[in-house]
Amino acid sequence: MIVVVKPNTREEDIQRLIKVIEAQGVKIHYSKGVDHTILGIVGDTTLIDTDKIRSNQIVKDVLRVQEPYKKANRLFHPEDTIVDVAGRKVGEGTISIFAGPCSVESEDQVVSIAKSIKASGATFLRGGAFKPRTSPYAFQGLGYEGLDLLKIARKATGLPIVSEIMSLEQLPAFEDVDIIQVGARNMQNFILLKELGKIDKPILLKRGMSATMKEFLMSAEYIMKEGNDKVILCERGIRTFETATRNTLDISCIPVLKRQSHLPIIIDPSHATGLSWTVEALSKAAIAVGADGVMIEVHNNPEEALCDGEQSITPERFDKIMTTLKKYAEFENKVM
Amino acid sequence: MIVVVKPNTREEDIQRLIKVIEAQGVKIHYSKGVDHTILGIVGDTTLIDTDKIRSNQIVKDVLRVQEPYKKANRLFHPEDTIVDVAGRKVGEGTISIFAGPCSVESEDQVVSIAKSIKASGATFLRGGAFKPRTSPYAFQGLGYEGLDLLKIARKATGLPIVSEIMSLEQLPAFEDVDIIQVGARNMQNFILLKELGKIDKPILLKRGMSATMKEFLMSAEYIMKEGNDKVILCERGIRTFETATRNTLDISCIPVLKRQSHLPIIIDPSHATGLSWTVEALSKAAIAVGADGVMIEVHNNPEEALCDGEQSITPERFDKIMTTLKKYAEFENKVM
Amino acid sequence: MIVVVKPNTREEDIQRLIKVIEAQGVKIHYSKGVDHTILGIVGDTTLIDTDKIRSNQIVKDVLRVQEPYKKANRLFHPEDTIVDVAGRKVGEGTISIFAGPCSVESEDQVVSIAKSIKASGATFLRGGAFKPRTSPYAFQGLGYEGLDLLKIARKATGLPIVSEIMSLEQLPAFEDVDIIQVGARNMQNFILLKELGKIDKPILLKRGMSATMKEFLMSAEYIMKEGNDKVILCERGIRTFETATRNTLDISCIPVLKRQSHLPIIIDPSHATGLSWTVEALSKAAIAVGADGVMIEVHNNPEEALCDGEQSITPERFDKIMTTLKKYAEFENKVM
Amino acid sequence: MIVVVKPNTREEDIQRLIKVIEAQGVKIHYSKGVDHTILGIVGDTTLIDTDKIRSNQIVKDVLRVQEPYKKANRLFHPEDTIVDVAGRKVGEGTISIFAGPCSVESEDQVVSIAKSIKASGATFLRGGAFKPRTSPYAFQGLGYEGLDLLKIARKATGLPIVSEIMSLEQLPAFEDVDIIQVGARNMQNFILLKELGKIDKPILLKRGMSATMKEFLMSAEYIMKEGNDKVILCERGIRTFETATRNTLDISCIPVLKRQSHLPIIIDPSHATGLSWTVEALSKAAIAVGADGVMIEVHNNPEEALCDGEQSITPERFDKIMTTLKKYAEFENKVM
Repeated sequence: MIVVVKPNTREEDIQRLIKVIEAQGVKIHYSKGVDHTILGIVGDTTLIDTDKIRSNQIVKDVLRVQEPYKKANRLFHPEDTIVDVAGRKVGEGTISIFAGPCSVESEDQVVSIAKSIKASGATFLRGGAFKPRTSPYAFQGLGYEGLDLLKIARKATGLPIVSEIMSLEQLPAFEDVDIIQVGARNMQNFILLKELGKIDKPILLKRGMSATMKEFLMSAEYIMKEGNDKVILCERGIRTFETATRNTLDISCIPVLKRQSHLPIIIDPSHATGLSWTVEALSKAAIAVGADGVMIEVHNNPEEALCDGEQSITPERFDKIMTTLKKYAEFENKVM
Repeated sequence: MIVVVKPNTREEDIQRLIKVIEAQGVKIHYSKGVDHTILGIVGDTTLIDTDKIRSNQIVKDVLRVQEPYKKANRLFHPEDTIVDVAGRKVGEGTISIFAGPCSVESEDQVVSIAKSIKASGATFLRGGAFKPRTSPYAFQGLGYEGLDLLKIARKATGLPIVSEIMSLEQLPAFEDVDIIQVGARNMQNFILLKELGKIDKPILLKRGMSATMKEFLMSAEYIMKEGNDKVILCERGIRTFETATRNTLDISCIPVLKRQSHLPIIIDPSHATGLSWTVEALSKAAIAVGADGVMIEVHNNPEEALCDGEQSITPERFDKIMTTLKKYAEFENKVM
Repeated sequence: MIVVVKPNTREEDIQRLIKVIEAQGVKIHYSKGVDHTILGIVGDTTLIDTDKIRSNQIVKDVLRVQEPYKKANRLFHPEDTIVDVAGRKVGEGTISIFAGPCSVESEDQVVSIAKSIKASGATFLRGGAFKPRTSPYAFQGLGYEGLDLLKIARKATGLPIVSEIMSLEQLPAFEDVDIIQVGARNMQNFILLKELGKIDKPILLKRGMSATMKEFLMSAEYIMKEGNDKVILCERGIRTFETATRNTLDISCIPVLKRQSHLPIIIDPSHATGLSWTVEALSKAAIAVGADGVMIEVHNNPEEALCDGEQSITPERFDKIMTTLKKYAEFENKVM
Repeated sequence: MIVVVKPNTREEDIQRLIKVIEAQGVKIHYSKGVDHTILGIVGDTTLIDTDKIRSNQIVKDVLRVQEPYKKANRLFHPEDTIVDVAGRKVGEGTISIFAGPCSVESEDQVVSIAKSIKASGATFLRGGAFKPRTSPYAFQGLGYEGLDLLKIARKATGLPIVSEIMSLEQLPAFEDVDIIQVGARNMQNFILLKELGKIDKPILLKRGMSATMKEFLMSAEYIMKEGNDKVILCERGIRTFETATRNTLDISCIPVLKRQSHLPIIIDPSHATGLSWTVEALSKAAIAVGADGVMIEVHNNPEEALCDGEQSITPERFDKIMTTLKKYAEFENKVM
């Protein structure tokens, strides 16, 4: 970390600042330039609060040279992390397909979809039991019953299951869930992240709608710091001024995060755009850009089939998409 | 709510759609236009999921004519809500000043600041006990001890106290806190909001960094729906492309939210810009634009005073700001 | 277009509004609902100013059912537009590669790069002669001399050339340029767009940094309305809160714009992220998602080669990327 | 400017980099730290392209310590700039009110509004002759005739006039306009800015919708570098994810820009929110926060009066707002 001191600062004030910083367990390399004095901070700067230093009256600017995350940092962990989930590998070299309904609605629904997507080659069954909804009047999910239905579908197909946790006290009910998902709205629910760091279970961490990539990795760090390094990242769109899509898929974050971190990362195009007819094109792009998988929402509403047909992704539509994605995975020399 | 059906849709498909919508407890007013058929939905549309209707193949677009919130809606509650906190009124006609340190650090610190801001005319003492920090390595607050110190400061000054809750299981410890603050990162922690709706205590709800005004009111609705209508809104800056300030204070939200809702709303300029030298100007603007109060971070670091002096808001600086703000409040015919 | 009138509006005020709207050459379909009166506007609504109607006191909301662009609209022009540039086709079925230096610096530089990229299979030589720079102190390009150097490089290689126009009075100098580029900062320079609509030459229109997809198409419409329908769109990143990349590549705009418009669209990953090591991955994603081409910045700085080597895209690096992209194009059954 | 070199870089590569940088006319202060080598660049760094240095393979990061603008920088020009416009002062100590119709429509309209706003105390008459419209089908303004009508209104009232230029070739027609406005969409039309820098006339420069404050000042610098230092800045809202208002008024930019620059700055609330009922509250906030004036859209549509009455700002409504603003100006000890 580098601290630039304002020109014409009194030497005694600089020495006072050095003492304050060194009290945080680091050393200072002092360099008097022509215009500015520069303090190079040597040691573990992850603990240093740059905002606090920046607010000091004699400080012109602070530049963090090392990223503030360690466990998630590729610098200290050059090889790719492969997360093992019930024998399936998630990470570099493999394309994982997370598929299933947005909300678990009934045994019939979830078992039927699970069988279909299994046949099409999906790796994991995802389904929402607890649903974070903007409106308190909207359907909030089946809750614990939803988790039970997912387990029935798992038994019927062998597909490991993924579901979203919304609050700490739900944790015991997730003991037998294969991957616990943390949704975008909880990406900075630090209390929840810490507890998830204390268990030995894969965590699928979705990027917050207005989280920078650095903040995204800091949230992964919250989990990893407590001992759980089975973190799978998921890009699901960020909030921008554009309204033609629900969010803006930040596809560039794949190469950038791959360079900064060793964690696997997947893409959720369904939530990014909110437009199911974009999912196939974006899933292909996800594999092409280097993502380790995609999450795809699959519906089956027999009674509304005629109406919904073209727009939503039915098991039949999903099967066709999978055929394309498999070719892409093969083309990229990845297992799928 | 108005549903526009695509041109050239078969009548039987329209009838099928009408059935699906009416099954949700509303009535349809059918209007066949030259180009488009329009379905006017009559009744309580707060329960209707517009995204679901929009995803229907024969639907061109959906327009929500009524806002999806009821309890927070000025339409159904024209008079301003005044929240009573230990005898102090928060809301129209009064300017409330929430002041205190970002983090509670020691008894000396918090009692000393509390006495100073009391003398300057602050209405409430705010102080962080549980601190949501982007980095797991940063100071996370004194926790329960911090709440105890706030209560000591309250006893010493009579100022009601405000502190942030970060998770549901902390709720019992907040029983004797006068206002419970929900931070920006928890604005859509719906499980927490629901529980806060079941208690009889004022809630200070901060706007999420990427929350629209509508989503902000929907989060207030989560609390109010459960029975607690003592909600105070707080604008604290939204995330934009601008980096000269930490966030962008959305000051226009004051007149807009005042028109849409009857809830009191205050402004937190300290967090919006992260630049303490902007606080005075923005606090004046807050009163001028019609906010019901401001939240100001006040520090006292005797040993770092020389360095920090000009930039941060010490009790002395706060006292001067208060003198100006009182004149503004008087000018606007408000009690402060 | 649908106008929703507020409840309890007097009939005479509605009639007055109808007259105002009908005076703009459209017809009104009047529908009195239970809560709201709805006016369906029939006819060519591209001329109607929705903001003006929305500002009317008795109007609750306005919903535009038809897009306000016509020439660029796929609805009225279902087949894909293929732009012919000196015998090369740009559009559906073909992957076009626009490559070359950001700035033209010397004859040696541009001819040498042109020969290299030609050998690697590029379709067009792009090079900046007039450079829009944020700082007035930065290098502003060689200007007219730069255009001359591009023509020399074209003569040496046969590659058609693309360069950016910054102002109307430069237009005569572009007479012999194969494609005129309009940069992001000029996407809403309407006077320039209109004039470019009057010539018979392909226009490469870059999306503005904060332009919605709709505004992007409206700018294309400005050109097409005057008679020039040879418009090629280019997505080059939008401005968001993320700072790890210079801009955020909005890759989802490809399927969305392809559905809304018949115009060809390419992607410029170099400008989107500002990180040359992301260009290969994003170019692959561009072809996978359905873009009609990519624009890639290619450098050659022999004297700085050691330093710049890994990070920037030299002709050698470009050649390797092209090998990969050709496989992708083939895989997608496209000519490249 | 400070360049941080990556750890373990070979000394010869550092020396090569130093040569490349020093070739740009600056000196290097070399400092070898424990982890990183730091190069402090001494001299006029406004000419240095940080992106180019950052792209160098051995560079970890670059920190600009001095702002890249000089003429607009308060550091080199501590006293406030007061722009003199036909005897009226714009700048610190004075509140200037720019009022008038969005578009000039007829002599009657503009003269009538001009007389009214003059009577209410406005300082300048603004009116659009050339209108930048998103749609090519929308009314584009009266053009040169509009400028003539503004001059008639000036003659009738004595109010100096302000109007927007859209392109360089319109410049001769603006010779007798008192203040030339550069709209948000032209804020980075660098060719236009340069030419405006060569004339001796006040320029009202509006902030681009996605321009940072730094870019805003760099655009002012383009004008000032050529010799014209009569620049008045205008904040008119930036583009964010919020849709309840047309743009988001970035009110914090007033104290920040006042600290960084000596130029006067005004606020345009009408364009920021697109909601005329927010204009009064935001204008008060503008004065409270320290802006040097406000720009207010004033309409008069006698035939649509009944409908438009409450929502738009008629001369009568404007007169009432002015009464309030005068009290605010007086309260802030400013002339209005």
